[in-house]
Amino acid sequence: MSAPHLAVIGLGLIGGSLARALRSAGAVGGVSGFDTDARQRSLAVELGVVEQAPDSPAAAVARADLVVLAVPVLRTAEALRAVLPALPPGAVVTDVGSTKQSVLADVAAACGRLPGWFVAGHPIAGTEKSGVVHAAADLFHNRRVILTPHAEQDAAALQRVAAMWSAAGARVVHMDPVRHDAVFAATSHLPHVLAYSFVDMLARLDTGHEIFPNAGGGFRDFTRIASSSPEMWHDIVRANAGPVTQLLERQIGELGEVLALMRAGRWDEVRERFERARAARERHLAQIE
Amino acid sequence: MSAPHLAVIGLGLIGGSLARALRSAGAVGGVSGFDTDARQRSLAVELGVVEQAPDSPAAAVARADLVVLAVPVLRTAEALRAVLPALPPGAVVTDVGSTKQSVLADVAAACGRLPGWFVAGHPIAGTEKSGVVHAAADLFHNRRVILTPHAEQDAAALQRVAAMWSAAGARVVHMDPVRHDAVFAATSHLPHVLAYSFVDMLARLDTGHEIFPNAGGGFRDFTRIASSSPEMWHDIVRANAGPVTQLLERQIGELGEVLALMRAGRWDEVRERFERARAARERHLAQIE
Repeated sequence: MSAPHLAVIGLGLIGGSLARALRSAGAVGGVSGFDTDARQRSLAVELGVVEQAPDSPAAAVARADLVVLAVPVLRTAEALRAVLPALPPGAVVTDVGSTKQSVLADVAAACGRLPGWFVAGHPIAGTEKSGVVHAAADLFHNRRVILTPHAEQDAAALQRVAAMWSAAGARVVHMDPVRHDAVFAATSHLPHVLAYSFVDMLARLDTGHEIFPNAGGGFRDFTRIASSSPEMWHDIVRANAGPVTQLLERQIGELGEVLALMRAGRWDEVRERFERARAARERHLAQIE
Repeated sequence: MSAPHLAVIGLGLIGGSLARALRSAGAVGGVSGFDTDARQRSLAVELGVVEQAPDSPAAAVARADLVVLAVPVLRTAEALRAVLPALPPGAVVTDVGSTKQSVLADVAAACGRLPGWFVAGHPIAGTEKSGVVHAAADLFHNRRVILTPHAEQDAAALQRVAAMWSAAGARVVHMDPVRHDAVFAATSHLPHVLAYSFVDMLARLDTGHEIFPNAGGGFRDFTRIASSSPEMWHDIVRANAGPVTQLLERQIGELGEVLALMRAGRWDEVRERFERARAARERHLAQIE
C-alpha cells in the first residue's frame, strides 16, 4: 500500500511527537489530528505538527488508515467511541497509554468485544513537559515501545503498528499486558506517587520556605517527575490501581523497616540496604533507556 | 597576608574540587593534602590536584594557614584529632560535612570546647560520583555554601572561610546549625533514604530482571541519588538521625494516607495531592540550585 494516512486523536506531547516523527521520516501520506482543546488544534496546525485539525474526531479519522489514540489513559474508551462510527474499513487503531489491562478492558467494552484491528501500545518516552508545543520528532528515537498483543489480535494490524513505531525510530518489543502493568507500576507509576507525596509533604513543612533555596541537583532530579501532569498521572495510577497499591504498600513496609533499624541503632543494616541498592542500580544502569 | 597555604584532609570529590578551584583562582599559596587511602594521595599529586600529599595528616598541615576537613562526616573528630598536634598557631580549620550539629559536637569533644578557629561549613554541591578523579575546579561555581557560626566563633576565622568559598566561586550564607540540619534532612538526607529503599525493593521483586530494561528517563533521574556512596550517606543519615527519622516517619504516614485514599476510591483527593506537589515544585523551581 502507499504511505498510510495517519490520524492522531489527542494532540499533546506524545501524539504531536509521533506525528512529527512520522512526517519527518516520510512514513505517512497525510496527517490529520483532533484535540478537545481548540487551542491545541490550531497550535498543532500552526506548528506544522498536523496538516489538518478538524473540529470533530470523526472528521479527523474519515480518511485514516492508522489511528493513534494519544489521550489520557482514562479517556481511551471515550476517544474510541467518538471515532468508531467514522472509522474507514480496514483502519488500524492503536493507543499510547501507560497501562494496558485497563485499555484493553475499555476497548472491549466500547466495541462489545476486543477487535483484531486494535493494537495496545506504550512508548517508553516522554518528559515532565506536556502539550503539543513540546512535540519533538526525535522523542522516540532509540526508545522502547511495548506492544501487548491480545487473544483476538489481527497479525497484520500488529505488524502495521510495529512498522509505524520503527519508522519513528523506536525499538518494538512485545509483552503480556499483565506483566506490562506490573513492571510499569514499579518503574514508573510508583515513583510518581512517591515523588508527588514527598514534594507535597515538604511544601507543607514549617521550614517549607527554606527548603527549595537549599535544594541541590540531587533534589532537582529526585523530584523532577513531580512536575509531571497531575491529571495524566492520576489517570495512570487509577487505571493501574491494583499493582500500584500493592507496591505502595510494600514500599511503606520497607520504609518502616528502615525507620525501625535507624531507631534501634542498627546502622550496619541500614548501610547494607544502601549498598544493595547502589549495587543494583550500577549493575543495571546500562539497561535503563 | 599573602595567599594562604591550604591543607586538604580527605582527597575525595569535595576536597579535590576545592583544591582545584582555589589553585585555579590563584587564591592559595600552596596546597598539600592527605587521604588515608594511599592511592588517592598519589592520584591527587599525579592529577595536579595538590602539590604534596605526605603520608600523615600532621605533615600535611604543618605549614597550613587554612585546613579543610573533607572527610565523611563521622570521621571529622578523628581527622581533627590527627591534625591538632601539628596545627600551626593562627590556622583556621573548617569542614564540609552535610550535618552541622554532629560536627560541632564532635569538634567540641575533640578539643574539650568549641574553638573559635573552627568554622562549620557545608557546600551544596556534589554528584553521585566520588573520588579525587572526579574533582572539578567548577564544582562550587555559583553554588550555595552554608556556614553555621557557633557561640565561640572567631569573626576573623569565619571571614577567612567565607573568603575561601567566594574565591572558589560559591555564594556564602549563614544559618543556625539546628535549622541547617532540619532543612537538609528534608532536601537531601530523606530523599537519599527514599531512593535507596525504592531501588532496593525493586531489585528484589520477582520482576526484578525486567525492571531496569523497562525504565525510562524519569526512573533514571528519580533513582540517580541511589548511586551515591552508601558509606557517606550512612554517615550523614546516622549523624543527623533525629531530624531524618522524624521526617521519615512523617513521610511513611503521608504515603499511608495516599494508599488509604486509593483503596477507598477517593481519587479526586489523590489528584489534589499530585496537583499541590506539582504547583509547589513549579513555584520554587527557579530557587533550586
